[in-house]
Amino acid sequence: MLNLAFGEAGLPVHPALRERLARAATDNGYGPVAGAPSLREAAAGYWTRRDLPTDPGLVVCGPGSKPLLYALLLAIGGDVVLPAPSWVSYAAQAGLAGVRPIMVPAPPGEGGAPDPERVAEAVSRARAEGRRVGSLLVTLPDNPTGRLAGQATVRRLARLARDLDLTIVSDEIYRDLVHDERAAFLSPAAVAPERTVVTSGLSKSHALGGWRIGVARLPSAPLRDRLLAIASEIWSSPAAPVQHAAAYAYAEPPELAERVAASRRLHGVVARAVAARFAAAGARVPAPQGGFYLYPDLAPLGRFATSGALAAALLDGHGVGVLPGTAFGDPPGALRVRVATSLLYGESEERRLAALTAERPLDLPWVAAALTHLDEALAGIAGRRRFAAWIPAALAPAVT
Amino acid sequence: MLNLAFGEAGLPVHPALRERLARAATDNGYGPVAGAPSLREAAAGYWTRRDLPTDPGLVVCGPGSKPLLYALLLAIGGDVVLPAPSWVSYAAQAGLAGVRPIMVPAPPGEGGAPDPERVAEAVSRARAEGRRVGSLLVTLPDNPTGRLAGQATVRRLARLARDLDLTIVSDEIYRDLVHDERAAFLSPAAVAPERTVVTSGLSKSHALGGWRIGVARLPSAPLRDRLLAIASEIWSSPAAPVQHAAAYAYAEPPELAERVAASRRLHGVVARAVAARFAAAGARVPAPQGGFYLYPDLAPLGRFATSGALAAALLDGHGVGVLPGTAFGDPPGALRVRVATSLLYGESEERRLAALTAERPLDLPWVAAALTHLDEALAGIAGRRRFAAWIPAALAPAVT
Repeated sequence: MLNLAFGEAGLPVHPALRERLARAATDNGYGPVAGAPSLREAAAGYWTRRDLPTDPGLVVCGPGSKPLLYALLLAIGGDVVLPAPSWVSYAAQAGLAGVRPIMVPAPPGEGGAPDPERVAEAVSRARAEGRRVGSLLVTLPDNPTGRLAGQATVRRLARLARDLDLTIVSDEIYRDLVHDERAAFLSPAAVAPERTVVTSGLSKSHALGGWRIGVARLPSAPLRDRLLAIASEIWSSPAAPVQHAAAYAYAEPPELAERVAASRRLHGVVARAVAARFAAAGARVPAPQGGFYLYPDLAPLGRFATSGALAAALLDGHGVGVLPGTAFGDPPGALRVRVATSLLYGESEERRLAALTAERPLDLPWVAAALTHLDEALAGIAGRRRFAAWIPAALAPAVT
Repeated sequence: MLNLAFGEAGLPVHPALRERLARAATDNGYGPVAGAPSLREAAAGYWTRRDLPTDPGLVVCGPGSKPLLYALLLAIGGDVVLPAPSWVSYAAQAGLAGVRPIMVPAPPGEGGAPDPERVAEAVSRARAEGRRVGSLLVTLPDNPTGRLAGQATVRRLARLARDLDLTIVSDEIYRDLVHDERAAFLSPAAVAPERTVVTSGLSKSHALGGWRIGVARLPSAPLRDRLLAIASEIWSSPAAPVQHAAAYAYAEPPELAERVAASRRLHGVVARAVAARFAAAGARVPAPQGGFYLYPDLAPLGRFATSGALAAALLDGHGVGVLPGTAFGDPPGALRVRVATSLLYGESEERRLAALTAERPLDLPWVAAALTHLDEALAGIAGRRRFAAWIPAALAPAVT
């Protein structure tokens, strides 16, 4: 079984963070809803070092960026413009919050941002129907596509947000995992600081998904206060010992900066290798630019009615788990799947650490074996296509 | 400054729990949304030992019982019948979930349960207005009143819930802090198991508020599945290292059972002593039965327009912080305040431990000093009454 379905960073906790958590185990107080002052200051420093000068008083911490994103939907109000495809929880959260996701495809070749050409029309249409539209969301870089929206797109979306009076929510949880460190990264918070919320967390860059810690950078005190009022009633505060460790992480001491750099390299090497396998098998696969995801289009490989059927065939026939594009808002007939590459690093802490420090991680026997497994699965799928080619079209759906 | 406003347990983390948290610091996986199997099994054992046989598969863990209560509102749907007064967050959560709290006063002399005599009428009225009513909530024992609803009340509410087809949510987070261990405790889950959700957590019994861990015991798989679908989109899972420590706590090893017993004794001794001070000053104060709260009525002490004005006078004039009853759903003119007694144990871990182990905690100098401070504040308030008595009534509001 080759699990390429789950978006976990697949790396161990750095010992310095384990130690901080253990040391903070005496802290059992609820603390401020916004998070401990030390954590808010550290997060403000993190953003300030990235050319987003930040007032610690406008930082709000939560038990993951997921609850922050949910509470922001309630705090901002109104429907939300989402890129299509986009991370599964955005649209699901909108449903829970009683608002409507307005799905706008990403510009051709991009991911994580709705196409600026189509946003104004979609918003106007919703408003003409009497709906309130409150926000527009981008994911930089993106899950599921692994793509980073370009600066021109971000600038145009910022202008549109101003024209349409929308709050921008910029989910930058993968920001430190843009593979090419020299790649230009533009946050909408740098272009439209008065209306952009940035969310982030340590789940991906520091592989702390299970510790549940996220941070938000608010553009104004009124929105912060609405967010805090909601946070106070839904979750109170993130776990106190975790906040201490997170404050240490956001200070970016050298040993953690090195760990993030090593993780970034590993994610990039493996994501590119997996993309190459998909491309070699005939899939169309946009080159991954950040995080540990690919979003290949397998239409050239085989005839399947839906991406769900394709994912099922990969799982049942070849022991490869991926998520169908429908989970991310794709129409069922689009044969795209999301491939998470981070669970290839190994199942034990030992193997994961070896992958992290290896000069040539692809040569590690367990990584090489996983890639071979993938090759065989893709060949199997492609084999079905050749087989299916001479079956009468009317029978094909039953075959696939 | 004497802080009697904040509902924190005011006691240190037991070393065994600190150690479990530290040991689990390598666990960084998201894990199941419902919580780790070890934690679900331990929580099931906890309830089973309390005569509520529990299937671990019907246990859902969350980052505190607060998010579980919020998600249950969404999962059950419809308006919720709440006792008046009741914990601040119930009504606030209903507002966020877009449903209406139906406040029904507790039976005379009780707290934490809506008066069964008045529930049917309130529900019928809401339904006649076209509203859906989905649930009824009880807090056993109660915050803010410190009272434990009687068995007859619980049985009648269970029957009513059946007749009216309501789900019961029984918030039992203070259950292990009922002061008299021999007191009869009846959970509605024992009477109406098919429709009762029990929520609990370690914030109060183990003073782990800042660790954010709660558990829910669901009556059925469909409601569990709806809860999990919501939990998955709002918070994912509680912090993994905390789950390990919580699994240890719910197994109730002897050293933790002793700690809970010592906490229960301390909470009871101090809550009764504070109640006696209020009574001696002339307030009407129902005897506290569980947790670390009192809900005295100070109308006999002084002339104040609202409980807010009374709380402000206690704070500004006498350095005593309490919460006005309006926060719990009381009308403004009811001069009731919530008094949390647990912050009297001391401000340092050393003093708190000393309070926990003292044979006569009231004799500890810092506890005695706090009680004297309270006496003086109450005398000061009462003095204002004597002063206010000969002021023309038309001027009195300006004075108070």
